Amino acid sequence: MEHRLGLIGCGTVGQGLLEILRDKKDLLRDTLGFEARVVAITDTLKGTLIIPEGIDIAAVLDLLGRGKGLAEYPKATAAQVEPLDGLDVIERTDADIIAEMTYTDIKTAEPATSYIKKALRTGKHVVTSNKGPAALHYREIQDLARKNGLQFRIEGTVMSGTPVFHLAESGLAGNRIREVKGILNGTTNFILTKMETEGMDYGPALALAQKLGYAEADPTADVEGFDALAKVVILSNVLLGGSLKTTDVPCKGISSITKADIEAAKAQGLRFKLIAHAKAEGGAVTAIVSPQKLPLSDPLAGVMGAQNALSLETDLMGKITIQGAGAGKTETGFAILSDILAVHRC
Amino acid sequence: MEHRLGLIGCGTVGQGLLEILRDKKDLLRDTLGFEARVVAITDTLKGTLIIPEGIDIAAVLDLLGRGKGLAEYPKATAAQVEPLDGLDVIERTDADIIAEMTYTDIKTAEPATSYIKKALRTGKHVVTSNKGPAALHYREIQDLARKNGLQFRIEGTVMSGTPVFHLAESGLAGNRIREVKGILNGTTNFILTKMETEGMDYGPALALAQKLGYAEADPTADVEGFDALAKVVILSNVLLGGSLKTTDVPCKGISSITKADIEAAKAQGLRFKLIAHAKAEGGAVTAIVSPQKLPLSDPLAGVMGAQNALSLETDLMGKITIQGAGAGKTETGFAILSDILAVHRC
Repeated sequence: MEHRLGLIGCGTVGQGLLEILRDKKDLLRDTLGFEARVVAITDTLKGTLIIPEGIDIAAVLDLLGRGKGLAEYPKATAAQVEPLDGLDVIERTDADIIAEMTYTDIKTAEPATSYIKKALRTGKHVVTSNKGPAALHYREIQDLARKNGLQFRIEGTVMSGTPVFHLAESGLAGNRIREVKGILNGTTNFILTKMETEGMDYGPALALAQKLGYAEADPTADVEGFDALAKVVILSNVLLGGSLKTTDVPCKGISSITKADIEAAKAQGLRFKLIAHAKAEGGAVTAIVSPQKLPLSDPLAGVMGAQNALSLETDLMGKITIQGAGAGKTETGFAILSDILAVHRC
Repeated sequence: MEHRLGLIGCGTVGQGLLEILRDKKDLLRDTLGFEARVVAITDTLKGTLIIPEGIDIAAVLDLLGRGKGLAEYPKATAAQVEPLDGLDVIERTDADIIAEMTYTDIKTAEPATSYIKKALRTGKHVVTSNKGPAALHYREIQDLARKNGLQFRIEGTVMSGTPVFHLAESGLAGNRIREVKGILNGTTNFILTKMETEGMDYGPALALAQKLGYAEADPTADVEGFDALAKVVILSNVLLGGSLKTTDVPCKGISSITKADIEAAKAQGLRFKLIAHAKAEGGAVTAIVSPQKLPLSDPLAGVMGAQNALSLETDLMGKITIQGAGAGKTETGFAILSDILAVHRC
């Protein structure tokens, strides 16, 4: 079956998705019966391209790889590259699935939330890697999707393509999830790993993370725990049935942890990790982000470097832990694809 | 939607499944739209019960819990409890899903394979926790299922209900899996853990595993690696596209590992684990079961006690590791349910 895809946002994640669609075309068709026709791409920096007959993915990747905009797409008509706002693109395109991949604004969740609602109101499934709408408006958007007989899927918002929501809804379906506990931020885990295994101070470890591209120039969102906070709110509301806001969750990062703290923990056989933790108990869901000293026997203690992991406490299966990449161009592009494939299967 | 289930084998796994169906009836109906009517149960030790209108699950569990046979089912007619062979039960029942849960015979895979083929030939989906048919005849049975438009599902054959096949076919769909490496036998992992963390010798650690019910009176299948061998053959053939036989796979267990070996490894910062490993390379799939000394940074090194874990090497997501229970009444009963729910979703 062929699906018509519209991409809103075509930065790292969008290009990661396009690369996979280009490279795995035959495999996806032959093994899963899945074919994709990309009918629209729009990006505030790169312009707009709407071609209902299908966009040449390799040509787009070539353009963007050379730093060009979508307006330079070969033989494009003026109408095909008319500069349009995301909302207009969603309105006009005949895509049946919108992949929303714009930047996260965790305070307003805009313009992503408006894009998503517009897509659902015009009959399109939505898949997104954007934490904003999922953290701030999950229930409302999910209700809108259901009312319209559509899917709203968010695999990429927590551990990139390492499957969390797929795991809960397929392999673990039938379980009640009571608690989740995870390492959801690769940057801070990388820093803590370097401090412990190489005896680095916090400052140099952060500088190394920045040099290697794990941390941004302004590392606040990572090191103060705000990225993990948004993710634990999403997990609380989607997996535990909570209705938490980001302001409901106490949050402490790792910027005050010293080499001495880490060494003292190590001497006790413990290891510092930035832990996002949420629990459903007595009808209430609570969550917290904080550095924790874990015994080495905890499945999360062995998660080193920029990896992510999540333990789910379930009623039938006990504790199930999944570990994998938590970021990356291909990994987050795959997260989007995995949600598109879930729409395809239904 | 209501499914009609037939249970072939009603020992620990079957009773685990029935308990979940009894306890989660409302939850499964309300959240997943799933309802089950058990229409047939047969077990070589406990007798046969065929009631197309539906069997009272609580009454059956009560009988079996009191050591009674199915013939004593309240108000059963002679026809409903007529002693029948599994093949006859499968022939006669109008179940749309057969749960095959008889004991594993890894040499012949019988009578399970005959039961499964009979079910597929009479229009019934099959779910099983039996390693025999999956290890010896996976491809042949899967072809038969496809030819008849039916499903043959085997989640419970490798890590009980810890999802391996669900993970590969939903969350990781689109990836090519190149290699799998796992701790697939909880008994040996329990023994190695006790030897390392409590300084026990092999003999006393094995005796403790037997006392706690992890190891059988004859522990050969576990400690010599044969259980892990059957599982790695299944993984090779299902996930890597191989066509291995059990005799193709070199297999060494843990019975010759001494406390001194473990201490020497520990001094090098390494940890002994019984590793099942399979790889697809240059068109060929190979596998091996052997004790390996892992660096502590390996996600499998931190898997302690009777837990199982599997790392999948994928082309898009890199290494994904899942850890959880690898055995147990509820856990394996849930594995069967998870496959039934997969049939329900499609």
